[in-house]
Amino acid sequence: MELTGVADLPEIRPGDDIAALVTDRADLEPGDVLTVASTIVSKAEGRTADLEDFPVSGRAQEIADRIAAMVGEEKDPRFAQAVLQESTELLIDAPFLLTETRFGHICVNAGIDRSNVPDHDLLLLPKRPDESAERIRSGLEERGIEDVAVIVTDTSGRPFRYGQRGVALGWAGMPASRDWRGELDRNGHELGVTVQSVVDELAAAANLITGEGAGGTPAVVVRDWAFGDHDGTDELFRSVDDDLVRQALREWRVDE
Amino acid sequence: MELTGVADLPEIRPGDDIAALVTDRADLEPGDVLTVASTIVSKAEGRTADLEDFPVSGRAQEIADRIAAMVGEEKDPRFAQAVLQESTELLIDAPFLLTETRFGHICVNAGIDRSNVPDHDLLLLPKRPDESAERIRSGLEERGIEDVAVIVTDTSGRPFRYGQRGVALGWAGMPASRDWRGELDRNGHELGVTVQSVVDELAAAANLITGEGAGGTPAVVVRDWAFGDHDGTDELFRSVDDDLVRQALREWRVDE
Repeated sequence: MELTGVADLPEIRPGDDIAALVTDRADLEPGDVLTVASTIVSKAEGRTADLEDFPVSGRAQEIADRIAAMVGEEKDPRFAQAVLQESTELLIDAPFLLTETRFGHICVNAGIDRSNVPDHDLLLLPKRPDESAERIRSGLEERGIEDVAVIVTDTSGRPFRYGQRGVALGWAGMPASRDWRGELDRNGHELGVTVQSVVDELAAAANLITGEGAGGTPAVVVRDWAFGDHDGTDELFRSVDDDLVRQALREWRVDE
Repeated sequence: MELTGVADLPEIRPGDDIAALVTDRADLEPGDVLTVASTIVSKAEGRTADLEDFPVSGRAQEIADRIAAMVGEEKDPRFAQAVLQESTELLIDAPFLLTETRFGHICVNAGIDRSNVPDHDLLLLPKRPDESAERIRSGLEERGIEDVAVIVTDTSGRPFRYGQRGVALGWAGMPASRDWRGELDRNGHELGVTVQSVVDELAAAANLITGEGAGGTPAVVVRDWAFGDHDGTDELFRSVDDDLVRQALREWRVDE
């Protein structure tokens, strides 16, 4: 398996065609996986915003005040308002905001980025990253590049472990997970570990090359990796019923 | 960056020297990262066990009974006992066991594997995966192979997202994370995302090759990837103070 960053992508502007920019700089082959950082997808989709775009609701003001009191520095309530508008549920509301975005991903601040944005205050996540991935994939097909899966990635923290790692937000042309159910180990036992989230593993692998900051390469080509002869599933974001941690967070909030 | 599975490793037995078995089958170079699945590390370290090794405490019986009632099938209390003995804290006790292992990793069933074990019932995680990694690294150095980092890996589920992905349990020869604090983005803003868990990303990348089951390749060589000129940190497992989800789980249990 080989991962190569797509070199020399320009600063992306609204309306830019990522499929075109990538194909000009990388020789994609059938079977490749192309990972694209959500930052450039968002920029191409015009998902920049300014704090003044978010008139502050009472709830946003209350959240900002509470966080400010806890962490001992001013918090802009317009930023809290932006996070609320991008989210369907607030899982943790202090000392930071953990929310579920409108497309189902759980992360801090609805994934809104305050760095990496020239000329604007904020960069929102793509509205529908699965549709973004599909659009890029179609763009590749229009240029005669068939059978390339596309993953829109971000980085995200997590409970239990320090640090951020790459995760998938949306994908097209492959399932999210390999399903090993019913498959056997070397000794003929049915495998205990049944679903492997390969889109997240590909996103994590790509992020080793993408990294953060000025030298980043936001698009990465994965070659000589194959999904293989397994069943696939396309669910990545847990439902509340299947997520005891999320249930605990709901009750925790109610108890306060 | 290139990842290659180490081909044709034999079934590992207690006392086997993983560094020797790998160097016989792969031409490691300075700067490579070697990932090794905890299953083979555990086997080499004799961490197999049988259910009869775990005389059942009252607490284990109670846990097994409660889970059995919830999921509607028999649960072996000796397995619950094994999980308790490998753990320092029980975070979720039904309908499955989420615990903190003695070395700080949070996972289901203390990572005890019931597949992949010939001649025994159970395979426990390595006792001190960081020491296991260091031992393998020393074994490589004894064979004249310098400057190869070693990561002991496992797969693990997580809150919020379905599926398992590769994670690091122990590492040697490199920091766990890249620390981007103080570094700037293209536009001169300080980066919001500050700590990148590269050992977890390397483990996830390797797991795309390792997979599960009979065809697995439990050791993977990562070439042409460099940690680069960043500060490093070596903390991977969150302390309770830094983990709101864990705090919520503690209270959730108390409230029941």
